[in-house]
This record gives sequence, structure tokens and C-alpha cells, in this order.
Amino acid sequence: TAEMGFTGGDLKETQFHNSYTINFKMSGETDTGLSFGATYRLDADGSSEENQNPVGDNGTVWISGAFGKLTLGDTDGALDWALTETAMGTAITDEGTTHVGYSGNGDNYYDDQVLRYEYAFGDFGVALSVEQDDGNSATSTGDGDPMIGLGGKYKAELGGVDLSFGLGYQTGDTLRYAFQGVNFLDAIGVQYVSVDVLGVSAKAAMDNGFSAVVNYVTYDYGSSVPDLEHYGLGLGYEMGALLVHANWGKWEIEDFDSFDSFGLIANYDLGGGAILAAGYASDVSTDDGDQDQFSLGLSLSF
Amino acid sequence: TAEMGFTGGDLKETQFHNSYTINFKMSGETDTGLSFGATYRLDADGSSEENQNPVGDNGTVWISGAFGKLTLGDTDGALDWALTETAMGTAITDEGTTHVGYSGNGDNYYDDQVLRYEYAFGDFGVALSVEQDDGNSATSTGDGDPMIGLGGKYKAELGGVDLSFGLGYQTGDTLRYAFQGVNFLDAIGVQYVSVDVLGVSAKAAMDNGFSAVVNYVTYDYGSSVPDLEHYGLGLGYEMGALLVHANWGKWEIEDFDSFDSFGLIANYDLGGGAILAAGYASDVSTDDGDQDQFSLGLSLSF
Amino acid sequence: TAEMGFTGGDLKETQFHNSYTINFKMSGETDTGLSFGATYRLDADGSSEENQNPVGDNGTVWISGAFGKLTLGDTDGALDWALTETAMGTAITDEGTTHVGYSGNGDNYYDDQVLRYEYAFGDFGVALSVEQDDGNSATSTGDGDPMIGLGGKYKAELGGVDLSFGLGYQTGDTLRYAFQGVNFLDAIGVQYVSVDVLGVSAKAAMDNGFSAVVNYVTYDYGSSVPDLEHYGLGLGYEMGALLVHANWGKWEIEDFDSFDSFGLIANYDLGGGAILAAGYASDVSTDDGDQDQFSLGLSLSF
Repeated sequence: TAEMGFTGGDLKETQFHNSYTINFKMSGETDTGLSFGATYRLDADGSSEENQNPVGDNGTVWISGAFGKLTLGDTDGALDWALTETAMGTAITDEGTTHVGYSGNGDNYYDDQVLRYEYAFGDFGVALSVEQDDGNSATSTGDGDPMIGLGGKYKAELGGVDLSFGLGYQTGDTLRYAFQGVNFLDAIGVQYVSVDVLGVSAKAAMDNGFSAVVNYVTYDYGSSVPDLEHYGLGLGYEMGALLVHANWGKWEIEDFDSFDSFGLIANYDLGGGAILAAGYASDVSTDDGDQDQFSLGLSLSF
Repeated sequence: TAEMGFTGGDLKETQFHNSYTINFKMSGETDTGLSFGATYRLDADGSSEENQNPVGDNGTVWISGAFGKLTLGDTDGALDWALTETAMGTAITDEGTTHVGYSGNGDNYYDDQVLRYEYAFGDFGVALSVEQDDGNSATSTGDGDPMIGLGGKYKAELGGVDLSFGLGYQTGDTLRYAFQGVNFLDAIGVQYVSVDVLGVSAKAAMDNGFSAVVNYVTYDYGSSVPDLEHYGLGLGYEMGALLVHANWGKWEIEDFDSFDSFGLIANYDLGGGAILAAGYASDVSTDDGDQDQFSLGLSLSF
Repeated sequence: TAEMGFTGGDLKETQFHNSYTINFKMSGETDTGLSFGATYRLDADGSSEENQNPVGDNGTVWISGAFGKLTLGDTDGALDWALTETAMGTAITDEGTTHVGYSGNGDNYYDDQVLRYEYAFGDFGVALSVEQDDGNSATSTGDGDPMIGLGGKYKAELGGVDLSFGLGYQTGDTLRYAFQGVNFLDAIGVQYVSVDVLGVSAKAAMDNGFSAVVNYVTYDYGSSVPDLEHYGLGLGYEMGALLVHANWGKWEIEDFDSFDSFGLIANYDLGGGAILAAGYASDVSTDDGDQDQFSLGLSLSF
């Protein structure tokens, strides 16, 4: 995929933006009918000089069959897998998903190497995941408990409305006290903290093109660091080639100020993989005040 | 593409040379018939140990239709687009284009991210380009004027001779006072200097296999740094699978010594993408005296 | 190719392992029927965070025809080309080939850029190779003699047993006194040492699935550093989709203690490119005592 256009906002000059993503997708089948495969990609973002150092990402290996599917690598933990994010559509510099109040329900507690097992039966799906403390990263002693995740999904159709529900739970230690711009673990001088994460999401998509997502996740740490809650809401409307979308998110931090922000997306599908994409984010930095960002350009898939 | 052979000269031992370029070319078409695409490549040059760090290059994204073509990325500015370079053929360590008196009419005033619009009508072609000072690079404050370019091309056939003419103009600020081995901006301690660049080229290709290119570009800086002029001449002869070529170039620097050098190329096309290529450059360093370089090998395209 | 599974042992926590190798293989043919091509690959091993920096490897360019085949790049020297290694099968973290007593008969005397010419006639094959001291690497002055290699192979069938023999000789200077964990050249403060390497191997593969490899290489240095000898033995048994293998290797160092170790491999071929692979290495570090390592997982080719 590739992008071209321009981006600007409070933190940068209005400037051109082009980027490339080279996706490698591999798959095969064993003699007994198991499917297997792998994904990997090279990302080159930013200006031409910066593009000289492509970055690898999104590497996964998987095998699937009647038993379900097993995926290892840079993939979603069970909670992230189960929950529907509030963002819809695309923007060349990702205004829909990079504002400070947004949450992707992410993992990355240790080295981002997740093993996930998933199984689907009818309208239900379940997943189990584990991310180990391998002791390989610079800040890790290898003594952390693994992050174990459990997730469930359910789809239903009710009077012309497509409904989908997600429920996830993860528990373990973490090296990060993860939200944008603040690392309380550095501040209090501890290396690991245990955390229980519980999240729910619901999405409704109507025949008339309207859809809505709600997403709520709570992070319950030990007494030493403040707990977190995240609220997310996404609204979308599709009509023919047009998609308009808004999402809002809010982080509540125990004993601290909360912060929230929103993102706006407009997409026009030109067909053949080309999308004309506009994005606006109300605040992309946790510094005081709002630092907005926007982009307009073409998102191209081949 | 790949290369194998050997190279040597005054500045290095005669040694083997092998290199690889992995090209990614992507393209598509919208429902209304606009074409779009992207290019990216990974380069791995030199010895096997050095090849462990491939370098990304040549990333562009483009869209074209009846309105013309818009290209963003590591692409030619309008002057470079309009002018014909004097070099022909190939050599595995690029003796035709890397001698000190050679000029590729290049851009790269800021971060090498160029937006170019081009339009063709009959035998005429015009282009407009802009390269912004994004303020992203280490030495840039973001206060430089953009480099704006304008170029025109014209093709004609006159008594069995194919003629092509190019005219280009670029104006703006630059962080570089660009020619090989000398950076006057460092010397005088200023960060930006304004420059007007004007260039012309003409090429004649005869039915009997002879062709000639002349290329002249003048760089008019403010009074603080010396102005530059570049003269280039290229001659070629093709007969069947054989191409022999020589080019000469000279930089004249106001109030300084000028320097010139030449390159020689012989190519024999083995068919199927394989070219047996020999190259000689008379001087590849601006140090005193001439430092020559040569190569002989196979240039392979797949 | 890609791998997924887990690995552990005395030197690391038992942990997940996933990795990716993106192979680029290019080939073509000239008008006169010469074949040519190139290989290159990107490796991304280890955890997801480490996978962000893919490493290039295995770059070669080659041309072949009735005259034989010429290969330049990261390829085997003539001795390595001629000899059969003792390892069989695969393991996701390479327990069969990475234990301290194992030898791959490798090159890499200078910058790993080898030119090899090979020619086959009937059951015989011969090769000649050269690896130059280009003076490009940090520790090289460019004054070393090139490493010249000569190798021969012979295949025969004797009473239902497939026999293959290899004989190789290399001579020249080297910057390395290569075996795992010890660099005598650093210790004695010299930069280059001349070396004569002589190696033989024999393999027998029987119809009933049993096969055996013996491999012996001697490294004769000048008087200033100790000479080396390497002994290797590999045994394998294949039955249908199953392969079990063991190899043992020993380094004898003049005037020093010798060290030896073994590797065990079990592979079950699931078909379609998927192999279930288990590996065990008895010792993966030259530190005192044995440091073992194991792995179990899927090795996937696409």
C-alpha cells in the first residue's frame, strides 16, 4: 500500500506526506488439510531521506484447522482481538486513531510477541492468549508473570441491525503503565506491576448506513500506581462511496486529570483500491492545551 | 536487478563487486479510469558483509489521468525532469555518472521529497515541481523558501534525426551549495542561501546509430557564495548489440578553479536482460590530480 | 519461510520463537542460452521488537552455461562446496548446526565475498574459488593474500548404497583464527596469519533409509598460532514422513583442551512445506560445562 497527500497541524508545518508499506503474505496447506501461513511487512514512512531505513513490522506465523487457529508474533492479545475499536475508515497520517484520547485496546506489555489461540462456533468466537516476559528486552529481568488473555465475541442480527459484542480479560505483570505520554513506573521506580484488564465493546450497524461502536476498558493496577479507565465512542455513516466518521475517547486516571479528544474521518472510495481520505484529530499531544492535526490525500492499495 | 564483476582504480584495490536491487512496483486503476501507483526499492551494494543492511530508495507515489500526472516522493524536480543527461549505457560501479565533472541536474535541496505535476500535449511536455523545507532534517529550521521548478520538453524529427530539447528553471532556498566535495555554506556559516537555476539540453539521435547530448546549467546564488556553471557533452554510437559512449563534464566555480572529467562506457547486450558492461571514469575525487576508476562485469535485469 | 514454536535451555528461559525469511530469487537467460540469476534474502528473527530490523543475507549473482557456473557473493568457497556437512533436517533454532563442536566448513576469511567457478562432468564435479582481501573491512589493511580454494566431488552407487565423496583444499591468509569463542589472532597481536585447510567428507545413503556422513578438516597455521582439527559424524534415518538424526563434532586445538558436543533432530513432514521439528544441542557455549538448548515448532516453506 502507499499514501500521498499533505498533513499539518499545531505541531508541524503543513507538508507533503508519502509512505509505502510492502506486505509479504505467505500461505500453504499440509497434506491433512491444515492451513498455515505467515505475514511480514516493511514500512517506509515520512520524507524520502527517512525512507532509506524501512522498518519491519506485523510479523506473524499461523496454523489453522478444525481445531481452531494458532497465531504467534506481532498479533492481538485475546482482549484486543475480542473488542471492536471505535475507529472506521482511514487517513494518511492516521488522525482517526492517533489522538491522545484514543485507545486501540493494545497489548505490547513485554516484547509484543503474542501467542493466540482462537476458535469459532456459529456466531460465537473465543480466544486465549499469552505474552511472556522473555527477559530479552533491555528493561526486563525475565521475572514478570506472563500476560494471559481471554476473549469472546458474539454476532447477532436483530430487526435489520447487525450487532456484535466483545468481552475480554487480561491479567499478568507489565513493564509499562501504558498510556500516551505518562510512564508512572519510571516515576515510582518499580520495574513490574501487576494489572487486571477488563474490556467490553458493542457495535451496531444499520441497513441505512449508520453504525455505532461503544468500547470500555478498565485497568486495575496494584495500589502503587493509579488505575485507568478508557471510554470510547465511534459513529459512522456510509452512503455509496462515501464514509464519514467521528470517534471520541477519554482516559480517566485515578487521582489525576482525565483527558479526552476526538477524531474525524471522511473517505471517498474511488474504486480499484484508491481512497480519497481526509482526517482531523483534535489533540495529538498530552501537553497542556489541544494540539490538532489534519491530513488530506490518497490511500492506495494494490 | 543485480550486478557482478570487478572494479578498481587509483582509490581502491582491484576487487570483486556484486550488488542487488529489489524493485517493488505497484499500480492500480480507479473506477473512473485514473491510473495510480507507487515505486520503492531496496539496494544492497558492495561486499557481502555490507549487504546486511539494505537501504530503501526511490520511493514515489503517483496518480495520472487526462489531467496529467502527479508524482510525490523521491522523484525528479521539473528542471531535472526536463533536461536530458549526457550519460548513456551502464557500468557496474557507474563510471559514466560518478566522475567529478558529471552532473545529473539533481534536486535534493532539502529532504528529497518532491511533488511534480506533468502534462503532455503532442510533442510538448511541461512540468511544475515543489520541494518544501519541512523542517524535519537535522540541519533545517523549516524557514527556507520552497524550491519551485518549471520545465518544458519538445521533441521533433528533422531529416532522419530525432531531436529533443529541454528547458528548466528552479528557484528557492537551499541548505546545500551542491557540487561534489565542496560545501561553501558550511564554510561561510550560513544555513540557507537562495538560488536561481536555469538549464537547457539538446539531444540528437541519428538513424546511423550516432547520438549526441549537450547540457548546460547555471546556478545563480546571492553574492555571499560563488555562482556555478556546468557544461556537459555526451556522445554515443549503437550498432546492433553494441553501445559505446563517452561523456565529458565541467564545473566552473566563480573565483575558483574549475574542474572537469570524462567517463567512457562500452556495453554489449547479451539479451534477456543481461548486459556485459565496461566503464572508465577519468577522475572520481576532487582531490588534487586525477583519480581514475574502472569496472567490468555483468548488469542483470529480471 | 517462517518458523513458530518455542525454545529454551541452560542459557535462556523457555520462550516462544517466531521468525521470517523473505527470499528473492531472480533468473533469466541470454539470447545465446546462458542462464543467469541472483539471490537475496531478508531475515527477521527473534521477538517482534527485534523483527523491526530485517537483515540482508545470502546475496549472490551467478551465470552458467556449457562452460560451467560462476557465482559471486555470499556463497561457499570450493572446500565448503565440496564437503558434505554432517547435519540433516531442521530445527527452528538450529540445534543441529549451532552446538560448539559443529563445523559448517565455512569461509568468511575476509568479507565473505567469494567468487566460485564450478564444473560438472558425469559423476564428478570440481570447483575453484577465491576470496580477496579488499581492504574494505575495519580490521583489514588489504595486504592479506587471497584465500584460494580447490574442491572436488564424486558420486557413485554401490550395491544399493548411494555414495558421495568430497575433497577440498584452501590456502591463503586470514584475519580470523576461526572457531567459536576463541580468537588467537587478537591474543598474539598479529593481523594476518597464513593457513592451509584440507578437508574430506564421505556420505553413504542406504535404500532402507539409513545414512551416515563423516567429515574431517585440518587447519594448518604458521607456528605462531595453534593448529586445528575438526572431526564430524552424522547419522540419519528416514521412514516415510519421519526423519531422526544425530550429529557429533569435535575441535582439537594444538596444545589446548579439545571440545566436543552433539545435536539431535527429529522432523515430521506434514506436507505442503510444513515440517514439525524438534531439536536438541548438548552444548551451545564454549564456557566451562555444558549449556544445552532445545526447540520444538513448525518450520514452514511457501
